[in-house]
Amino acid sequence: MLGEKRGENISAYSPAVETELEARLLWLIREGDHITRSELMRRTGLSRGTIVSRIKTLEAKGLVETVGKNSQRVGRPSRALRYKKEAGHIVAVDLGATSLTIGIANLNAEILYSRELQCDVTKGPAVILPVIVDSVRRSLWELELVPSQVKGLGMGVPGPVEFASGKPVTPPIMGGWHLFPIREYLESALGCPVYVDNDVNIMALGEKWSGLGKNVDNFIFVKVGTGIGCGIVCRGEIYRGEDGCAGDIGHIQVTNSESIICRCGNIGCLEAVAGGAALEKLATEAAVNGKSHVLSEIMKAKGYVKCEDIGIALSHGDPYAVEIVRSAGQLLGQTLASIVNFFNPALIVIGGGVANLGDLFLACVREAIYRRSLPLATRNVRIKRSILDGQAGIIGAAVLVLEELYLQKWPYVMRG
Amino acid sequence: MLGEKRGENISAYSPAVETELEARLLWLIREGDHITRSELMRRTGLSRGTIVSRIKTLEAKGLVETVGKNSQRVGRPSRALRYKKEAGHIVAVDLGATSLTIGIANLNAEILYSRELQCDVTKGPAVILPVIVDSVRRSLWELELVPSQVKGLGMGVPGPVEFASGKPVTPPIMGGWHLFPIREYLESALGCPVYVDNDVNIMALGEKWSGLGKNVDNFIFVKVGTGIGCGIVCRGEIYRGEDGCAGDIGHIQVTNSESIICRCGNIGCLEAVAGGAALEKLATEAAVNGKSHVLSEIMKAKGYVKCEDIGIALSHGDPYAVEIVRSAGQLLGQTLASIVNFFNPALIVIGGGVANLGDLFLACVREAIYRRSLPLATRNVRIKRSILDGQAGIIGAAVLVLEELYLQKWPYVMRG
Repeated sequence: MLGEKRGENISAYSPAVETELEARLLWLIREGDHITRSELMRRTGLSRGTIVSRIKTLEAKGLVETVGKNSQRVGRPSRALRYKKEAGHIVAVDLGATSLTIGIANLNAEILYSRELQCDVTKGPAVILPVIVDSVRRSLWELELVPSQVKGLGMGVPGPVEFASGKPVTPPIMGGWHLFPIREYLESALGCPVYVDNDVNIMALGEKWSGLGKNVDNFIFVKVGTGIGCGIVCRGEIYRGEDGCAGDIGHIQVTNSESIICRCGNIGCLEAVAGGAALEKLATEAAVNGKSHVLSEIMKAKGYVKCEDIGIALSHGDPYAVEIVRSAGQLLGQTLASIVNFFNPALIVIGGGVANLGDLFLACVREAIYRRSLPLATRNVRIKRSILDGQAGIIGAAVLVLEELYLQKWPYVMRG
Repeated sequence: MLGEKRGENISAYSPAVETELEARLLWLIREGDHITRSELMRRTGLSRGTIVSRIKTLEAKGLVETVGKNSQRVGRPSRALRYKKEAGHIVAVDLGATSLTIGIANLNAEILYSRELQCDVTKGPAVILPVIVDSVRRSLWELELVPSQVKGLGMGVPGPVEFASGKPVTPPIMGGWHLFPIREYLESALGCPVYVDNDVNIMALGEKWSGLGKNVDNFIFVKVGTGIGCGIVCRGEIYRGEDGCAGDIGHIQVTNSESIICRCGNIGCLEAVAGGAALEKLATEAAVNGKSHVLSEIMKAKGYVKCEDIGIALSHGDPYAVEIVRSAGQLLGQTLASIVNFFNPALIVIGGGVANLGDLFLACVREAIYRRSLPLATRNVRIKRSILDGQAGIIGAAVLVLEELYLQKWPYVMRG
């Protein structure tokens, strides 16, 4: 088992590589692009014996191959090593409150295939998990993959997860999922190792792997969807906290108003005033009581109003929509200002449905952060919308599996 | 240079060990208590050549010695390695808003000597730094130490520090210190490498080394003194954030009241309602207008009221003192509740003058945290008062130097 807290991660399956050292060598080989055994010795200080025996193990597992040439050099061809990203496939599942995305990736977290379904997470695991299993099987079938080619499944769920056991713990927007053994269910149904994490953690992983977070050591990914939460990257790795629930900012109190009752049972939570569900409620009220003409029209046409409709109202310059979005942005920004003071990140990536409503939202978030954070903490901070547009989750779910089973960052620089 | 962001740490001096690898080996030798070269090979996977040459360098620097016996084994005596903690001395300086502590430690951060002085940080560097240099020279003189025996100086200051340059940046309670080159001043005066950090970071380091934070990977140290700030330990190491100002929770907004103006220029900051200076102001008002009999008596006797006097009033059951302390504890607890939701630490250590006023303060902090944090995040969190009682700062200042110059944690477990 690899890394922080992962020693406790109880799965029916062993990792593909047995030691941290192998996972770290595999990392160097993947990064190194045709690195030789001698270069590995030089970079790590490890003995030839250690390198040779570990590479032999990795070759036997089919994860590394020796190729004829070191492509980075001229002259005498030397035997270089290549990470076989095609040696297996990873299934990636991103379960949202109202949607489900299934992806199939190679061992480099490159998405080869993806499909999205509507899905209501509140129907509970007994309904949703069979849908996931069915969709995964169908996806594998379409790609002509057999079970042995699937090395693992990574899944994000919209609520706190005790990462070590892979079970949701008192997830406010996931009625019926509390302590449900998602891992055991999927491992027995699909026959591969399964890792489950909070959706914002896997999105942060995805941003780190191939989004704005690439080469950024300390950043947070804030998802403003039905609920609000954030994934934390600290020193280049996901930080999950002591109980796996770090980043749960949706339930920070932002108002004393007794009338704002959150799903978690507390009053005045951020999520209850700035989350997608809260905005949808406000928009519906405005459509019904006529406060917003545009939303009323939409209501007339469709019979209901969704969060995305606020975006349509915004684009029509609807004053009430502006008011809703501005207030939500300011309250989120105010909370993030506290987090900027505490965590001093280099980057805040904002994703999720509400973040996509328009530039106004991001502008209000930025304004509140700059107003309420210390100047030193905001000197370098960038506040950006995610550029992975819905793929951060499945990319991250694949990376989660890779980091659990195969790859571990090389920790030191060998010099002199 | 060692570790996160330390690569940018510009000092006139080179570290005592030249590579991360040497610092990591030194860590293993210190931890290992008479570890042999063979055991080092086995634990690290490094080649004999690498081990032998690095140990030779470390021996030449006088940091390691070979002793006759491996104390942990019976039978044939083998040549074991010992970390020479007596090979040098570290000067530790903990500068508070109103006090200055100087300590002298060995290379294992064991405090051999300490002295405390009254000192008003607002007098600025031109007054304070000569006092520090003088006190350090006097302390060294008393211990009969010559300059070559002093390997480095670590110092904590009560405000944000850009760690890479060692300069305070817009420190609200340190008038005149903004961007003052403390490091250059002390390096040229004392002739040894100097590292400067926020006082709460070095206190957290001290707690990690020999206080409640020992063996705890993720915790925060909250200092409630004249100002309020916290040091963050993440995965066993101090987390300083992108600009070195992580943990600056004193300027998180806790009230909208326009009448609460903070030294930082913003309104409603935590520090402006729950810091020692704020409580002293409230206590003084209560002593003057007679709201508190006990404080009025103290005022009559001494001519002024200090923060510690609130503790005396508390012990007399003075209702107004109870009210002040309760309100401060609740506001701090409310802020920490947000941080518990975000960071999900295993432990919160609370230190500083206000924390020592009495159990009531800690009780109110605890109550607010438990009320406002998610159940999962508070399942395991411990909220304790520091047990190092004033020594956390100088222990941590010594550890800071050790971690910059000598020791770096070994990063992986070698198995199989």
